[in-house]
Amino acid sequence: MTITTVGLDADDTLWHSETYFSVTEERFRALLTPWCEEADVAGRLLERERVNLEIFGYGIKGFTLSMVETAIEASDGAIPTGAIQQIIQWGKEMLTHPVELLPGVTEAIDALHGRYRLALITKGDLFHQESKIAESGLAERFESINVLAEKNSTTYGTILSRLGVQPRDFAMVGNSVRSDVLPLVELGAHAVHIPYAITWNHEVVDDSSPVGWASLGSISELPGHLETL
Amino acid sequence: MTITTVGLDADDTLWHSETYFSVTEERFRALLTPWCEEADVAGRLLERERVNLEIFGYGIKGFTLSMVETAIEASDGAIPTGAIQQIIQWGKEMLTHPVELLPGVTEAIDALHGRYRLALITKGDLFHQESKIAESGLAERFESINVLAEKNSTTYGTILSRLGVQPRDFAMVGNSVRSDVLPLVELGAHAVHIPYAITWNHEVVDDSSPVGWASLGSISELPGHLETL
Repeated sequence: MTITTVGLDADDTLWHSETYFSVTEERFRALLTPWCEEADVAGRLLERERVNLEIFGYGIKGFTLSMVETAIEASDGAIPTGAIQQIIQWGKEMLTHPVELLPGVTEAIDALHGRYRLALITKGDLFHQESKIAESGLAERFESINVLAEKNSTTYGTILSRLGVQPRDFAMVGNSVRSDVLPLVELGAHAVHIPYAITWNHEVVDDSSPVGWASLGSISELPGHLETL
Repeated sequence: MTITTVGLDADDTLWHSETYFSVTEERFRALLTPWCEEADVAGRLLERERVNLEIFGYGIKGFTLSMVETAIEASDGAIPTGAIQQIIQWGKEMLTHPVELLPGVTEAIDALHGRYRLALITKGDLFHQESKIAESGLAERFESINVLAEKNSTTYGTILSRLGVQPRDFAMVGNSVRSDVLPLVELGAHAVHIPYAITWNHEVVDDSSPVGWASLGSISELPGHLETL
């Protein structure tokens, strides 16, 4: 066995996240139907999020601000202020939503704990991620917890140096090919892709020809898979 | 000399920050004058921020959402959507404002660099803080950069362990008695308070009887002061 250290993504790998965005977006489209076609709202929100990403970064607060902006634009300013309050309330509900672990996560983490050094490596809103990690009950299983502003080969390289692990001895596990797989392949580390039911548009890449990483159907297969590396 | 490692806060210690909040709040109060007394707006915003802090954490995105909520509440819903767009635009301007170093910072950091291990220890929005650190041109002077969700004796204790430094060999430098001084005194480390022109209400503490830390008028006095510890 060469793998000594396993990095795990959090949102949509250990617990649900994208589902809450998806449900909120559905409500948001419905809220705007008096002024705008649902498909048009979806397109406008995605574009607004894309433009705002380099100012806001990832996370629910930026998403909420993007919804407010889109609502005003898509309604030509006619949206009532009560609807804007509703949108902000949805953002708060997302931020305070209880953490819901994905099936098999506790068992998988317990199986890995003690056999590998475990590092939680997530991105986005520091405050919200730390709240979720604390609430998950899993924090003590992890030797280190790392919240990054962005996941790329540079930021992963910094984490690996800090952990004192060589890329060939490290495996990253996550639901996003763009964020959890490709930067690791670039570094010469192992990567394991465990898709979530929904992929945020921003994270979608052409992963039709996976080379240099594995894809599993569930985190329950992870302990067995790591032994084969 | 016993001090080996110096921690430095960033906002309002190395560069201006609170000033931008203050200017934006002034504009915000003026915007709401058709519906609400300026003093009343200020009180409502502060209370809204206080309530939202445990959901949003620190940073400009949460501040912007708090302004939008306060504007709708303080105007009984009468605020036009164009004014809400204006508020969000202010938030974006704050997030993209160029970093302005405080006087003497570059010289002081240069004087400390090489004599002490330097750690940047800040709190708030990870994405925005990392943007500012990169833009400041000072990142390479620091051995480590640490963005915390909250500054207290527990989170500082974790940082000191990670740095491998004993509290008695560590000095923290910052503008907030609450965040940069008291937790360190509690840990038995050194602390140096360098007040900024404005202190955010949330950070105000009764610091009338400073015991166990020093207060300097400017960061230019820091290199000399550290040699006396």
